[in-house]
Amino acid sequence: MTKSLREQFDPPVPGKGEMEEGGRFRPRFSADGLITTVVADADDGTVLMVAHMNAEALSLSLETGIAHYWSRSRGQLWKKGESSGNLQHIAEMRTDCDQDVLVVSVRTEGHGAACHTGRKSCFYRRVVRNGDGALALEFDTADTPRFDPDKIYGKD
Amino acid sequence: MTKSLREQFDPPVPGKGEMEEGGRFRPRFSADGLITTVVADADDGTVLMVAHMNAEALSLSLETGIAHYWSRSRGQLWKKGESSGNLQHIAEMRTDCDQDVLVVSVRTEGHGAACHTGRKSCFYRRVVRNGDGALALEFDTADTPRFDPDKIYGKD
Repeated sequence: MTKSLREQFDPPVPGKGEMEEGGRFRPRFSADGLITTVVADADDGTVLMVAHMNAEALSLSLETGIAHYWSRSRGQLWKKGESSGNLQHIAEMRTDCDQDVLVVSVRTEGHGAACHTGRKSCFYRRVVRNGDGALALEFDTADTPRFDPDKIYGKD
Repeated sequence: MTKSLREQFDPPVPGKGEMEEGGRFRPRFSADGLITTVVADADDGTVLMVAHMNAEALSLSLETGIAHYWSRSRGQLWKKGESSGNLQHIAEMRTDCDQDVLVVSVRTEGHGAACHTGRKSCFYRRVVRNGDGALALEFDTADTPRFDPDKIYGKD
């Protein structure tokens, strides 16, 4: 492969017309080479997680149909679910008006968990106000851990 | 108000335990003071847009129940829908495991459009492969513009 990984995609172009109303995929990577990716459950629409793809992760996701991301914390390509078995099969990918965000709708293998805490979704807590008006987080009791992270990933 | 806008929120703390399994809201703003916010339709779960809040926008969103963001392109506070009438009433706010992303579920006034192109969602195009295998964008024919942006915002 002689082209850089980013050059395999059509580049963004100036102006809004082509980016917003065009039929060509022109993913707009950030200065650090990433595109924000919202991951939703293909069957019920639940927002599962937010991650980032670089050009390699996007390319692999499109080629294989299995979601790949770039792990900013580990600084490496991340085939989601490789350790836990919770691979994400991409049913659909969308991009937004200015093509700087992706939404991937996925079906999850294994435990059906996107979150490393073992839960289906990373968004398992609601921001609420307590009786005294203070902000608090309320756990979604419908989303309890489906696996024990210590057993899957080992203890920290 | 003597506290800085950011100090009105509990600060993130080291380690995973309290951030991931705690009951206190400790929003983790990025170095530039923003938190990524996924906006979903409260009734059907459609991902509508992705925006960012700074501490002021988050505070106003929580106080008023109307979504406020920080416009990175304009460099100013952004009461979504102020021009178009498409105000977003927040039905629920969630945060993720490490509290660096929010999901707000909203009901939209006006045309029921989140996108400045007039569409319900900014994610109105699917990434697909053409017959010849090339990547392309396919418009979601169920999401056509609900208003004429030129009439609402004026021509560029």
